[in-house]
Amino acid sequence: MLCLLYHEPQPAHKGRQKQLQMTELVLELTAQVLEDKDIGFGMVDSQKDAKVAKKLGLEEEGSLYIFKDDRVIEFDGEFSADTLVEFLLDVLEDPVELISNPMELRAFERMEEDIRLIGYFKGEDSYYKAFQEASERFQPYIKFFATFDKATAKHLSLKMNEVNFYEPFMEEPAILPGRQLSEMEIVEFVHQHKRATLRKLRAEDMFETWEDNLDGIHIVAFAEEEDPDGYEFLEILKDVARDNTNNPELSIVWIDPDDFPLLTTYWEKTFKVNLFKPQIGVVNVTDADSVWLDMSNDEDLPTAEELEDWIEDVLSGKVNTEDDDDVKDDYDGVDREDRHHGDDHEDHGDCDDHDDSD
Amino acid sequence: MLCLLYHEPQPAHKGRQKQLQMTELVLELTAQVLEDKDIGFGMVDSQKDAKVAKKLGLEEEGSLYIFKDDRVIEFDGEFSADTLVEFLLDVLEDPVELISNPMELRAFERMEEDIRLIGYFKGEDSYYKAFQEASERFQPYIKFFATFDKATAKHLSLKMNEVNFYEPFMEEPAILPGRQLSEMEIVEFVHQHKRATLRKLRAEDMFETWEDNLDGIHIVAFAEEEDPDGYEFLEILKDVARDNTNNPELSIVWIDPDDFPLLTTYWEKTFKVNLFKPQIGVVNVTDADSVWLDMSNDEDLPTAEELEDWIEDVLSGKVNTEDDDDVKDDYDGVDREDRHHGDDHEDHGDCDDHDDSD
Repeated sequence: MLCLLYHEPQPAHKGRQKQLQMTELVLELTAQVLEDKDIGFGMVDSQKDAKVAKKLGLEEEGSLYIFKDDRVIEFDGEFSADTLVEFLLDVLEDPVELISNPMELRAFERMEEDIRLIGYFKGEDSYYKAFQEASERFQPYIKFFATFDKATAKHLSLKMNEVNFYEPFMEEPAILPGRQLSEMEIVEFVHQHKRATLRKLRAEDMFETWEDNLDGIHIVAFAEEEDPDGYEFLEILKDVARDNTNNPELSIVWIDPDDFPLLTTYWEKTFKVNLFKPQIGVVNVTDADSVWLDMSNDEDLPTAEELEDWIEDVLSGKVNTEDDDDVKDDYDGVDREDRHHGDDHEDHGDCDDHDDSD
Repeated sequence: MLCLLYHEPQPAHKGRQKQLQMTELVLELTAQVLEDKDIGFGMVDSQKDAKVAKKLGLEEEGSLYIFKDDRVIEFDGEFSADTLVEFLLDVLEDPVELISNPMELRAFERMEEDIRLIGYFKGEDSYYKAFQEASERFQPYIKFFATFDKATAKHLSLKMNEVNFYEPFMEEPAILPGRQLSEMEIVEFVHQHKRATLRKLRAEDMFETWEDNLDGIHIVAFAEEEDPDGYEFLEILKDVARDNTNNPELSIVWIDPDDFPLLTTYWEKTFKVNLFKPQIGVVNVTDADSVWLDMSNDEDLPTAEELEDWIEDVLSGKVNTEDDDDVKDDYDGVDREDRHHGDDHEDHGDCDDHDDSD
């Protein structure tokens, strides 16, 4: 396995120089931690090594490209040693995990946050192999499971050579049309369904998720699952997502602040919200402008109906990040400099500006 | 709030110098991230600032001391910006969280990994205040909840002014003896019960947990909760813990490798185990010597009974880290240099040696 960091040429700007240095440090630490795992690490300068980059198909500066067997996996997540090591260890595992007893089945059923596919096969035959080939294209972002066990299949209502697709937080899976599916049929289906109605932001693909916005906006919900208030809000949110799972216009990004301690205070500043409490809002990914649903009454989270009404208003454009701009500047003490600061970073969204903002 | 890092004098050894530098960097980054939270940061040199340290009661080099109101909280966990920021944000929150509706109650009941106390009070009266004062002594390590709501109290079988103590992973809580408890009664009870039969290693107090060993050994279980195998093994482990909750000699440290990506490969090397699979073993905290239960047959995790038998053998000394030493050196290809390397670090256990091992 080989990991290549594709990076911008040595920048003139001091802050960016330091950032590139930090990135190198992270890569070094990762290499040290994984030294026994037979992984090569290298850096490719987008200017000096332009030819190599072209040949290898490296395109996005700042991304890490992992070459495993004949595949290329792009890492476009938080560049910390923690995240990177965990990611690479996941890549080293088998892409399909077998479920063979009731306890493992329970573990499978608990993973509601992730997109999961599960197939029922006679054994390691050609249909299983097609499933496995498909899984490799999505590893480690999307989880693939298989069972050869009749009782497990029965519990999941899976027929022989059938594959089910579980959208995060939904109770019922979608059944892939047809049986004895080819690799391409599976791949196609996943591509069409992988943007979930409610998706949890994960460190390992946070920039990719952020880039996958709808018409330049994201509906973003902050909720700490470990916190009673946050948990309650999240349950309401899941209800709303379940009711609207067939609306292709709707995809809510759930961020658990516990997963991003280093970004939490940055988000509080940028969005002017208190993240000790649950919040939901619309964020314009271009200028980081945002509006948030008023939930200032602590005792009274919105009901699923109220939340749905608000989301409808967002989708219809009635609630948007532009209308209130004048009012905002008059009344809420927004720091103008701060806002302009936000504007400097148009090109790469809001999630990734943390280092610049210090 | 003020945070002081109590550290050793500038070391002569290059590696340790670099480590101190890294620590400073982490502290700087933490301060930057939390710059709006009104927290002061400083460093106290155990030699140069010996007088100040004595006056403030700083004792453990490498610990961070947090001064909040009239309390001192010691942080003796993983020194990373992530962990530190999350910890400090927790310290800023109220030490007692109110539970006031069925959804919040469900959130409370799901937190099986943590030690939790919950009290039922009429309102913010003197009994509640005593509970709150007690909570401040354990914040943020032990979670305190209260309810003023009759239905919630009924669901938990709590009588007025009664306090329940939930040990991690146990189904039934212990009831604190008496009602209308004083601060000291609560504090005493928590101190007596805080070493759980099964405790999950957490980044924020990992060194403290490691130091709290029983006769120089730890029973350590590695299991990834997100992995079907790991989940299954963990369920067995919980059963065993529930059956043996009254045995004060038994405390199993559960480590989820997912929580410690940077240490996983170090542990694999030190303990010579494969952490892609669940493992349970005995670790001698002085020399990092260890023995592990043979679970090489993938299909066949031990039953709760088998696990209990093995734990009994550990507690009786029949299974221990010394007996096999000769055999080990003859047969299993242990790298002698590696083992001696492990011996260098006698003074501070195994958890914290990661940086030295590179």
